[in-house]
Amino acid sequence: MSHYDKNLDKNEANYVPLSPLSFLERTKNIYPNYEAIVYESRSYTWSEVYKRCVKFASALDKIGVKVGDTVSIMAFNTPEIFEAHYSIPMVGAVINAINTRLDPKTISYILEHSDAKVLIVDRQFHEVITKALSNVKSKVTIIDIDDKDANLPDAKKIGEHEYEQFLNTGDENYNWKKPQDEWQAISLGYTSGTTGNPKGVVCHHRGSYLMATGSATAWNMPNKLNFLYTVPMFHCNGWCYTWTMSMLHGRVICLRNIDVKKIFELIDKYDVTHFGGAPIVLNMIANAPKEHQKKLKRKVHVLTAGAPPPSIIFEKMQNLGFDVMHVYGLTETYGHILQCAWNDEWENLEQEKQNEIRARQGVIYPNLEGAVVMDPETMVPVTKDGKTMGEIMIRGNVVMKGYYKDKEATEKSMKGGWFHSGDLAVTYPNGYIKIQDRSKDIIISGGENISSIEIENTIAKHPAVSLAAVVAKPDEKWGETPCAFVELIDGKKATEEEIIKFCRETLAGFKLPKKVVFSSLPKTSTGKIQKFELRKKVKELN
Amino acid sequence: MSHYDKNLDKNEANYVPLSPLSFLERTKNIYPNYEAIVYESRSYTWSEVYKRCVKFASALDKIGVKVGDTVSIMAFNTPEIFEAHYSIPMVGAVINAINTRLDPKTISYILEHSDAKVLIVDRQFHEVITKALSNVKSKVTIIDIDDKDANLPDAKKIGEHEYEQFLNTGDENYNWKKPQDEWQAISLGYTSGTTGNPKGVVCHHRGSYLMATGSATAWNMPNKLNFLYTVPMFHCNGWCYTWTMSMLHGRVICLRNIDVKKIFELIDKYDVTHFGGAPIVLNMIANAPKEHQKKLKRKVHVLTAGAPPPSIIFEKMQNLGFDVMHVYGLTETYGHILQCAWNDEWENLEQEKQNEIRARQGVIYPNLEGAVVMDPETMVPVTKDGKTMGEIMIRGNVVMKGYYKDKEATEKSMKGGWFHSGDLAVTYPNGYIKIQDRSKDIIISGGENISSIEIENTIAKHPAVSLAAVVAKPDEKWGETPCAFVELIDGKKATEEEIIKFCRETLAGFKLPKKVVFSSLPKTSTGKIQKFELRKKVKELN
Repeated sequence: MSHYDKNLDKNEANYVPLSPLSFLERTKNIYPNYEAIVYESRSYTWSEVYKRCVKFASALDKIGVKVGDTVSIMAFNTPEIFEAHYSIPMVGAVINAINTRLDPKTISYILEHSDAKVLIVDRQFHEVITKALSNVKSKVTIIDIDDKDANLPDAKKIGEHEYEQFLNTGDENYNWKKPQDEWQAISLGYTSGTTGNPKGVVCHHRGSYLMATGSATAWNMPNKLNFLYTVPMFHCNGWCYTWTMSMLHGRVICLRNIDVKKIFELIDKYDVTHFGGAPIVLNMIANAPKEHQKKLKRKVHVLTAGAPPPSIIFEKMQNLGFDVMHVYGLTETYGHILQCAWNDEWENLEQEKQNEIRARQGVIYPNLEGAVVMDPETMVPVTKDGKTMGEIMIRGNVVMKGYYKDKEATEKSMKGGWFHSGDLAVTYPNGYIKIQDRSKDIIISGGENISSIEIENTIAKHPAVSLAAVVAKPDEKWGETPCAFVELIDGKKATEEEIIKFCRETLAGFKLPKKVVFSSLPKTSTGKIQKFELRKKVKELN
Repeated sequence: MSHYDKNLDKNEANYVPLSPLSFLERTKNIYPNYEAIVYESRSYTWSEVYKRCVKFASALDKIGVKVGDTVSIMAFNTPEIFEAHYSIPMVGAVINAINTRLDPKTISYILEHSDAKVLIVDRQFHEVITKALSNVKSKVTIIDIDDKDANLPDAKKIGEHEYEQFLNTGDENYNWKKPQDEWQAISLGYTSGTTGNPKGVVCHHRGSYLMATGSATAWNMPNKLNFLYTVPMFHCNGWCYTWTMSMLHGRVICLRNIDVKKIFELIDKYDVTHFGGAPIVLNMIANAPKEHQKKLKRKVHVLTAGAPPPSIIFEKMQNLGFDVMHVYGLTETYGHILQCAWNDEWENLEQEKQNEIRARQGVIYPNLEGAVVMDPETMVPVTKDGKTMGEIMIRGNVVMKGYYKDKEATEKSMKGGWFHSGDLAVTYPNGYIKIQDRSKDIIISGGENISSIEIENTIAKHPAVSLAAVVAKPDEKWGETPCAFVELIDGKKATEEEIIKFCRETLAGFKLPKKVVFSSLPKTSTGKIQKFELRKKVKELN
């Protein structure tokens, strides 16, 4: 035993469990009067946010919420859900933010499975929640969010408490709890569950702290930035920026609904420096009607994730003055863990090549330890040739604790000491990763693997196209062939022949879509295209 | 037991010990060709630095250096000591950077006490090291740094290896070791030891990682900054910027000796954005001859620490275009843990008041959990009135593991769950801390406590004064009275009467120095004035 291991143990002075709650406490002490949140007619300073969170935590404590209890919330991006990311963990409980676009049946499942003791819910969800609760056997205390700025004249009361009144039953001197262990759960987020029931992803205080520090470095975020909260806070805790913002004493600009005109207005009014959004949101911005756009006063930094963006989006956004970085992550990894970090050496490449690079998922965040594309059978890394496919395997402190009450799925997902992402990708010689497809989205035609994303990106470059999604169409001869669903830009036109001809210019023959369908595309609440819906549709085609 | 604690344990996929070594590995993968270090005629990219570190680690492994061994280094701020902060931990060993201005006797003590297996040493120290080694019984392998840019025509060989040759015995594919436990020691730094033998401060991988992330936020450091390494890397591992720089892929500009003319040249040549230095260094810059100054092309951010800076320094530096932030820390806390974080609300205050605020030590770093001024007897926090004195007590993940082979001192220093800094301070109503004195630097005159620092700051405002230090002079009537030692700016003059009269304008009568001595002041290698030398002198005065 080395002398370095003798009498040099952890004690209260030199070891404190990491928790993002520390950031809020520090920031309200140092910058008490700086604006923390603005939303429509309301704004709160860091001192006010802190006081509101402590009071809400105290109120939860008073109704019996304890360490290890689940508190669910279903809300738009209003101050309440931001605060919930502090108040709920302050009583030692776990925040379960529910996707706002879910159906009553799934919500019932989540409320039951998560063992939710409390549900904080915006009154706009009166109907869906009433239905959902009719199938929940356990007792859930409901706290309504009554958003005066939402203009919901018919918003009905759902529960026994109203957020502001409930908050005011709390004590501002409440002795809130830091976690005893940094491995303690802080959040429970349900995956969208493309097959079967959604799975509950458990994250801890340590990981949330480290996602905050890592995000700041990865995105080169300065202190006191103006952050437009376009990303739903129910999605991976808003990519953990709910916590990053208190670390950086950034100003959070809330947005109840995605509305392009409003986005441009808020950017202008609050001097927004940073925001994030799925490619679908960027697509809306890039193709916004001229009368809804406002000229940017400064460079605005944008993160995009959630689906591989067509490279043309980067060019359109850049032309408007946005600097877009593509990132990649999963609910299981606290949000983003790969970033397409830009390298000055690429500045001299042609625009087309630059766009192609920007569409890669890239390299690891500074808070991650490893993301390697491997053969999932042998766990051997694939050759870095930009061609050989494998599955992205992930390791580090921002990988979830596991799935709630699902030992089997937890063990399966982390088999071999790596988290299995389920995403198929290649690695370029410089180490940058590019997703080719979700495992099940690969189209196998005549024995050849075809990436549906490659076809989608090609089609998206067509001047009339807004969005494209490609799925496999069963085919007697080839097994499967690519079938493209295309959403056109308002007022523009294109024919099936034109799209196929356009693809032929750059794609190999076997990769060409054999069928092109023009229609609007079904999307999830987070902007991902619901390919399973398209797969249903494709079977109905002749 | 909550469901959140069942079957959700740590495993290889979701838990990896924190270590700053991860930052270097990531940065060389993403930015291999970016400049990492520049020094005189040499420069290295991140890819080269990584390769050199791995080879050096391999070479250390080959000569038998093992996990938990100590490797000492005594060097100027040249690339070798930067690399050592990675290569030594890469073999699982502990870096012990030795203060370059120590005497042979103290060096002997450190080499013996630290159990050093290897000493990497610059040839300029031939004489002092030869003397030191003559009193070391254990076998220490010596690796010479032969710095061609140092112009040391008489530099003699000390050891059996030369750095570059030794490095080249290593294997660039060496499988270097990440720590098994984030609590594993990474560094051993000896305190200057004002009384008795120096104590060895043991720091770990976790704390070094968190100091890197915390520093970036505290100082609002962007990626790819240009960092002039004026702070000695032997001092708290160069305030841990040795590791912060790889996290941010910053460019490190090395500087062998403090030379004001050179500092201005390097700032100009390399577009320096950030550097740090003791007040003595800032004093040299602020008072540099006009012909040595170069006009700054941009705002340059400067940290200062090590001794409370006279407030006039801030004003002089600001006038030259430097933005100075005052920080505070100790070897025991990985360097800085308090920062005088600026608040926009103070912009309208008078310059004098602003300077006064800037001279405070301030508030906690984001990676610290607590720093509270307490009554050391009762451990009760003092009133936040800017008057009541207590001792700064510190808690968090950037507090050392403890003192090497000194259980008693470790326990004493962390008694009551807080690290006892030994610094006496007050807390202002807004929570900002200001050091009044080191415990033993208080002057007690006629039963009144007098802060020597308050007098020093007053004298430093006199236009002819460069530096001032005040110590207690034994006095039959009053017990003690303040005695000032004053260093004048070259070419300027002042008399004892003038200085006392100048103090009388702002200081209470009992705080006036009763004696003023003009002389150059004795300083430690880190720029702290050696008050114990002045205390010896004071006894010789009539």
